[in-house]
Amino acid sequence: MSAEHSKRRTALLRQLREHKLDAVLVTHPPNWYYLTGFTGESGVLLVSEKGTTLITDGRFTVQARQETSGIKIELQQGALYHFAGAFLTQHTPRRLGYDAGQLTVLQLSTLRKAMGRKWRGVPANGLVERLRMRKDAQELAVMRKAAILVGQVLESVLKLIKPGVRESEIAAELEYQMKCRGASGPSFETIVASGPRGALPHARPTAKKLRKNELVVLDLGVILGHYCSDMTRTVYLGRASSRVRGWYRSVQTAQEAAVAAVKSGVACGEVDAAAREVLTKNGLERYFVHSTGHGLGLEVHEDPRVARGQSVRLETGNVITIEPGIYVEGVGGIRIEDDVVVQAGRSEVLTRVRRDLIEL
Amino acid sequence: MSAEHSKRRTALLRQLREHKLDAVLVTHPPNWYYLTGFTGESGVLLVSEKGTTLITDGRFTVQARQETSGIKIELQQGALYHFAGAFLTQHTPRRLGYDAGQLTVLQLSTLRKAMGRKWRGVPANGLVERLRMRKDAQELAVMRKAAILVGQVLESVLKLIKPGVRESEIAAELEYQMKCRGASGPSFETIVASGPRGALPHARPTAKKLRKNELVVLDLGVILGHYCSDMTRTVYLGRASSRVRGWYRSVQTAQEAAVAAVKSGVACGEVDAAAREVLTKNGLERYFVHSTGHGLGLEVHEDPRVARGQSVRLETGNVITIEPGIYVEGVGGIRIEDDVVVQAGRSEVLTRVRRDLIEL
Repeated sequence: MSAEHSKRRTALLRQLREHKLDAVLVTHPPNWYYLTGFTGESGVLLVSEKGTTLITDGRFTVQARQETSGIKIELQQGALYHFAGAFLTQHTPRRLGYDAGQLTVLQLSTLRKAMGRKWRGVPANGLVERLRMRKDAQELAVMRKAAILVGQVLESVLKLIKPGVRESEIAAELEYQMKCRGASGPSFETIVASGPRGALPHARPTAKKLRKNELVVLDLGVILGHYCSDMTRTVYLGRASSRVRGWYRSVQTAQEAAVAAVKSGVACGEVDAAAREVLTKNGLERYFVHSTGHGLGLEVHEDPRVARGQSVRLETGNVITIEPGIYVEGVGGIRIEDDVVVQAGRSEVLTRVRRDLIEL
Repeated sequence: MSAEHSKRRTALLRQLREHKLDAVLVTHPPNWYYLTGFTGESGVLLVSEKGTTLITDGRFTVQARQETSGIKIELQQGALYHFAGAFLTQHTPRRLGYDAGQLTVLQLSTLRKAMGRKWRGVPANGLVERLRMRKDAQELAVMRKAAILVGQVLESVLKLIKPGVRESEIAAELEYQMKCRGASGPSFETIVASGPRGALPHARPTAKKLRKNELVVLDLGVILGHYCSDMTRTVYLGRASSRVRGWYRSVQTAQEAAVAAVKSGVACGEVDAAAREVLTKNGLERYFVHSTGHGLGLEVHEDPRVARGQSVRLETGNVITIEPGIYVEGVGGIRIEDDVVVQAGRSEVLTRVRRDLIEL
């Protein structure tokens, strides 16, 4: 992978030149992993024309040497941002970019104080995130596997989903199956929300037992080779009423309309609108309380946002979720979510589980 | 719990008066959970003499109403910090505290722009964290259970730890047992690091198979009722050599010395020194590459830091980990970790698993 990392650092350096920066601070772990392969949780990475330096503490130096190549590792002494400031003072970049959405006010002021009159920081947000949005062939290969795996995990647990079983037991089994099948873990806390609890879009699994004639929302993802998948299916315990079937059909139609709208060049807001229109036509728009989707990659939520009014245009290599849903207080929720790659002029759905209503 | 939350908000208001603030922004999820019971992942909480308001988006409003009492819920329109700024403009606190260690540079500048000349922000760091350091009887009762549970989880999996089993399989089984036994999940990604991989203090489990005559570091914690436990044991596969036994004994003696040093009124640095001295006496200090411990509670890492030179004094109700370790490149690691409550003039060890070398 080190050739890949070096290529990415070169791409970042091109961005630095465009922004007239001669160095950039990378302080967000997925970003330094993307640029170097370092999986440690604490550090500061400095990328400049003169070379790349990772500052990290004694817990992570051995693994930093094993995981990276072509970069310098600097052993942090004392507090991280004090040390980083002192280090920068010796290297005095003329214009130093930092991400204002990631650096805290305190980290910035610590750097400023440590560097005194040598401080030349300028906000430069999302530089690495912008690179990360366009997945290369190698990343897409891993993400395909992560998406297939999450589907297999769900299918392996369907037989357990029946009245009397607790939400928490199903979540435990799903996450166990992820790990047994090679995932390093869930990409977020698995959601199993049954009956009225499904009306909370982000419900945590509880000790509540599933009951007959309930909707069950299952939202899960795996991390495989550092990349995330994210999928939702909604099942019904028993035979669904015609009202529930109608709702389900509307959500499914909305989801498929949004998937069909995914193409390079299309604005994210148009994809969101495709789902929203179908739900509006069916009188369900007020139950759709979130946006249609989000980018996916090293993080389970990344750019671009697939939301109302977003003018950012999809590009080849973007991976996004498409996940409209409706939430009816006192009754339950229905959400269907797939992971989709933007290919030249078309889309590729990565998640491979049937999308019609599963009655168990 | 709502009486408890209201008491905590009252304690926070006392702090505001001390700092001559008339409102404070709470932007860190464990902090708003502590003050209100709200478990959602996105929002801004404003606590002031005039009342408490939670701003959150449509995904979380239903659960916010269910989980909280005595506070106002404000449905966010548009981007969170733009909306929060507009909301604050209508409520114009004269001095508004924010946590500079939690607010990003971008969030701060968004608030500033939205509020224009009405902006009266002042940094006020760690106000809620300071309250959270002193656990009350109810919190300690939950943390005792979380600590006992993590021990039971480890003991239930010991029989699986043998040559030929993969690190990742053991981690999967540990996390599965956590959930089956009532935990909402692991408090951090479980560490199973065997042989030379144990020399990485924060190693992630891999597909590596355990082998005879290896040390295996197992570091795990559960979240139970929102509170974390965190425990490490190191086992040996086979009969350990006298060199390894000697190392183990040194780490155990260091750990017990640090636990014995825990008392209200003692500086955290003294507890760290108690462990460090034993390892120095045994010529192992250079292998001890991190600090002795950290606070524990709603988060797995919180204040106080039990590290070299820390002058913060322990107080009754603090819960900390004590976890010295040594890491020998090419050989492996040994770490022993317990959770300890500071009681008046003494300590109480919460984790209940034997601490001597387990040979399997």
